[in-house]
Amino acid sequence: MTSDDIPRPGPQRAMRADVRRNRARLLAAAREMFERDGAGASLEAVARLAGVGIGTLYRHFPTRQDLLEALLADVYDGLAATGRELLVSPAPGEALTTWLRAFIVRITAFPGMAAAAAVSLRPEQPGRPEPSGARRAVRDAGEALFRRAQDAGDVPADAEFADALRLAGAIAMVTERDPEAADRLLALAAAGLAPGKGAHGG
Amino acid sequence: MTSDDIPRPGPQRAMRADVRRNRARLLAAAREMFERDGAGASLEAVARLAGVGIGTLYRHFPTRQDLLEALLADVYDGLAATGRELLVSPAPGEALTTWLRAFIVRITAFPGMAAAAAVSLRPEQPGRPEPSGARRAVRDAGEALFRRAQDAGDVPADAEFADALRLAGAIAMVTERDPEAADRLLALAAAGLAPGKGAHGG
Repeated sequence: MTSDDIPRPGPQRAMRADVRRNRARLLAAAREMFERDGAGASLEAVARLAGVGIGTLYRHFPTRQDLLEALLADVYDGLAATGRELLVSPAPGEALTTWLRAFIVRITAFPGMAAAAAVSLRPEQPGRPEPSGARRAVRDAGEALFRRAQDAGDVPADAEFADALRLAGAIAMVTERDPEAADRLLALAAAGLAPGKGAHGG
Repeated sequence: MTSDDIPRPGPQRAMRADVRRNRARLLAAAREMFERDGAGASLEAVARLAGVGIGTLYRHFPTRQDLLEALLADVYDGLAATGRELLVSPAPGEALTTWLRAFIVRITAFPGMAAAAAVSLRPEQPGRPEPSGARRAVRDAGEALFRRAQDAGDVPADAEFADALRLAGAIAMVTERDPEAADRLLALAAAGLAPGKGAHGG
């Protein structure tokens, strides 16, 4: 137990509530600014909109990617819940593509979000920190749908979930401003671009 | 005929040769710097390596995207030639995926090149300048392979070439540093991620 975990009376708890409130305000402000100006929006403007100083922003989120990860964590939690609901669907292949469509829609809430998600969901590499709970949850939920579709024969037996997720992320990145194109590209990747000659075709 | 087209003796022709040489040097220097530092490499460093001033660089290439387009034009010309060669292949669907694989490999010569290609190959929009000859050539060559594969029944009848090219571009963007992943993702998109349940499946 570190000294931070020791419960303290009044003043300390009040400060903690402030910290939490600042964090929530920063996230709401970031979402608003990013939706307007994209993921490269001014962090000064985010802090200003949240009513805090830029130093407070950096104490909560040392890098822009940290701020993006915090916004993505909410998205991941939502997608994990959606994935768990879809696990009871009677059509496993359809449930997987429905989930991948939701993944694409939700990681394109603002320009640059899909690129941040691609960084965030990259497979673990030596030296990288452990994935957050939300990152693990979204991958576990997607992978469960994927395995189920594979067991049902709707997805090629030699396909990998990580590749399917990366493909969906790639579609999100190039169709950020064009949801109809995202649907078309996902449908094309789902059905197969050249199924007559694909490795798993036939 | 503008005054620039009037043939002139000695000095003027010499200057023109200089202009051409500077352009060629700038392109070679840009390729070298971009391969080292990515598409965001310092343009000052490119000019320095080419042995010209930054003003000369900007006279040839007013924006970074113009410089990238000039490098891409060579790639597009090569891909157009490859596409024409593949038109005689006895396996139309395979020829298409071979060409898309070449497309992915060649637009990932340096980090950021695939993103520049995505901008460059975006479908025409009102107000945008006409595509260059190389851009038209690469699309025509790819589309000819695509139609041939479609006629052979290797590609779904309702698929669009622009979407296939965009999907390949998306794969290139997310796998820039990882050619094996590019191959896996293209194979997955070609065979179909969920062909059992896809719109064209069966």
